[in-house]
Amino acid sequence: MTSLVPDPTRRDNTLAIVDTLRNQGPMARIDLGTANGISSATVTAITTELLRHGLVSELPAEPHRQGGRGRPKTLIRLEPEAAHVVCVKLSLNEVQVVAGDFAGQVRHAETHSLTTATLTPDTLCDVLEEHIQAVSAALPGGPRRLDGICLAIQGVVSPASGMLIWSPALRFRNTPLTGPLAERLGCPVMLENDTNCIASILARQPAYADTPNLAVIMLGYGIGMSVLIDGRPLLGANGSAAEIGHSKFEPGGALCACGRRGCIEAYASDYALYREAHALLSLPPGDSAHPSEAQMQALVRLAEQGDPVARQIYHKAGRALGYGIANVLALFNPDLVLVTGSGVRGYAAMQPALEAAIDEALVPELVGASRLATHPWDRDMTCLGGIGLILEATDPMRLTDLSS
Amino acid sequence: MTSLVPDPTRRDNTLAIVDTLRNQGPMARIDLGTANGISSATVTAITTELLRHGLVSELPAEPHRQGGRGRPKTLIRLEPEAAHVVCVKLSLNEVQVVAGDFAGQVRHAETHSLTTATLTPDTLCDVLEEHIQAVSAALPGGPRRLDGICLAIQGVVSPASGMLIWSPALRFRNTPLTGPLAERLGCPVMLENDTNCIASILARQPAYADTPNLAVIMLGYGIGMSVLIDGRPLLGANGSAAEIGHSKFEPGGALCACGRRGCIEAYASDYALYREAHALLSLPPGDSAHPSEAQMQALVRLAEQGDPVARQIYHKAGRALGYGIANVLALFNPDLVLVTGSGVRGYAAMQPALEAAIDEALVPELVGASRLATHPWDRDMTCLGGIGLILEATDPMRLTDLSS
Repeated sequence: MTSLVPDPTRRDNTLAIVDTLRNQGPMARIDLGTANGISSATVTAITTELLRHGLVSELPAEPHRQGGRGRPKTLIRLEPEAAHVVCVKLSLNEVQVVAGDFAGQVRHAETHSLTTATLTPDTLCDVLEEHIQAVSAALPGGPRRLDGICLAIQGVVSPASGMLIWSPALRFRNTPLTGPLAERLGCPVMLENDTNCIASILARQPAYADTPNLAVIMLGYGIGMSVLIDGRPLLGANGSAAEIGHSKFEPGGALCACGRRGCIEAYASDYALYREAHALLSLPPGDSAHPSEAQMQALVRLAEQGDPVARQIYHKAGRALGYGIANVLALFNPDLVLVTGSGVRGYAAMQPALEAAIDEALVPELVGASRLATHPWDRDMTCLGGIGLILEATDPMRLTDLSS
Repeated sequence: MTSLVPDPTRRDNTLAIVDTLRNQGPMARIDLGTANGISSATVTAITTELLRHGLVSELPAEPHRQGGRGRPKTLIRLEPEAAHVVCVKLSLNEVQVVAGDFAGQVRHAETHSLTTATLTPDTLCDVLEEHIQAVSAALPGGPRRLDGICLAIQGVVSPASGMLIWSPALRFRNTPLTGPLAERLGCPVMLENDTNCIASILARQPAYADTPNLAVIMLGYGIGMSVLIDGRPLLGANGSAAEIGHSKFEPGGALCACGRRGCIEAYASDYALYREAHALLSLPPGDSAHPSEAQMQALVRLAEQGDPVARQIYHKAGRALGYGIANVLALFNPDLVLVTGSGVRGYAAMQPALEAAIDEALVPELVGASRLATHPWDRDMTCLGGIGLILEATDPMRLTDLSS
């Protein structure tokens, strides 16, 4: 195997330059050096290699803005076609398949409905293989060789071993997934929790640059969390850390999808909110165990309009989630707790009880300087995050070896 | 300022060698190299420098054991007299002052009773200054110049800013402590949570070498925790992470010393256990708000002898602590939860309810491979841990600069 960048420091610098170009877009060599603390001689040597292997290209020199001095700068950009990756998001009764390029841009996206509860490990792999191949074929110039796949699954997964441990979308548990899929598709497959994908993309946003200790809570059908500690995701011993959804509000409380009682999810997730609501309120028809976005929107609207039953349901949910967040504050002392996911649609209805619960639970010294905020859920960022993670894990060296 | 070890790598290697000698005792140069992945030429150069500055000394060559080959090995050991440090542990109505040497060995220890609740920041500093100077004078060849002080305080502290945020032992809050003390005593002062000191020394024990994700819970007058993630202590944004004592068992539950309700500490700490017991059981006389070890021993004995009231008290405490540990498992997914502190005296009486509570709270997938164990509390390791931490933070370069 010929290697593009033989020594470890050179390799680290190459990866840093590729990451910078992916996160910040086209840049001049001198700015790449400044951003990464690398000498311009090293930047030049590395970009020359990357150019030679077709991983980057040069953009025409920037015209001088008024007052600019010196030679106009040639920009370096990642060559989008140098790699193609796919992120698959599997959640209850839905699979999203999104293809991205070497620059981290989305090139194609599909969403399919399916009954996830009836899947076996084999039929899940059949479905995923089929959808991934269809997306690869739909790419311009396709079918394209894929350089990596990120499987983002709601629930508990072990990224290190590639095992699905437990997902509310699936009946089977403790099953290896990355190995069989990698064999079928002939490319590396990584497994991630869906919330970790979201957190990875949020953490890269400039708005959150000063909050290295960040807890991202995803409200939706279930409740997930990803915790960044000094910017690094908390994984735990086998990947099941940060499970706020199954931390406790009250012993012996509401029944959770996990089979235990009193979990935060059993009060503040979509299924929990709808379970309380559907007997008493007039809501759009549909599967009451798996409420649709239309059903949830209708419930939120009732609360916003002052319906006392709907308000009481969101009040209780806010109180439970507030206690859950209080435990997160006491145990992690984060800079910021960021609430997002499709369930933020109901945040305003939960907010008063949620904030009162935190105040009831914790003395101000334990809340400290931790802030609480929401992030809008105008689009599902899971696959964008997953594409970023699989690209980050993809060694540029390997791309050139394979394409040569 | 002349520097003993000018370049950064050389400096890291020097610190690594000093740490290895402190943690593992006298070692041959070749073994020091192996343990730290350093060439023997580098080890020789560094130990020569350290010898020249009186920071290490040579021990006579080890006689060959049966079957040994080659030249007998000369051992290098830290020179105990090269530095003297003190750890002060402040807890409710008690201050421990322990002096240690450069090798991390305890050289002198004192324990004093005092009424901590009446202290002001100034009178606290007066008391600490007096006790620390007395300990320094009591050292062989004293009074000795001190090279560093670790202040280990029960409660919430900010190591980065040197601020005491909140301690159950003290009435005042949000007060800088390290600055004033460093000025009075003329040496560096660090501030640590008492549980972090314990965790730091436990994490160095070979028994816990394979549990890099370790939660150490300290039971006693209050309930503290220290969480190591991949071997690094979790501090949080301002040092108040891992506060399991104030995570919640049930909303609106038992009143906690913090002023809120339903905290784990309000059920399973000494004061909480004794509060339930003293009206109904015949126990040794004393301050019922601050039960003594004799009072707590008497309560545990009653439970062990089958007294139904005492058993019920420990049952409820075990259930609350079990729910607290369940949240730790769900949120941190540690390799091991280790329960220690003087309160382990009652662990056996709590254990059945505690284990049942974890099982009631969490599905097996979320308990995963996490283990639960106790560590005996035959001696208070806080100051030994604090001595280790302040020595680790003490730059050998600074010692030679000051002593030359």
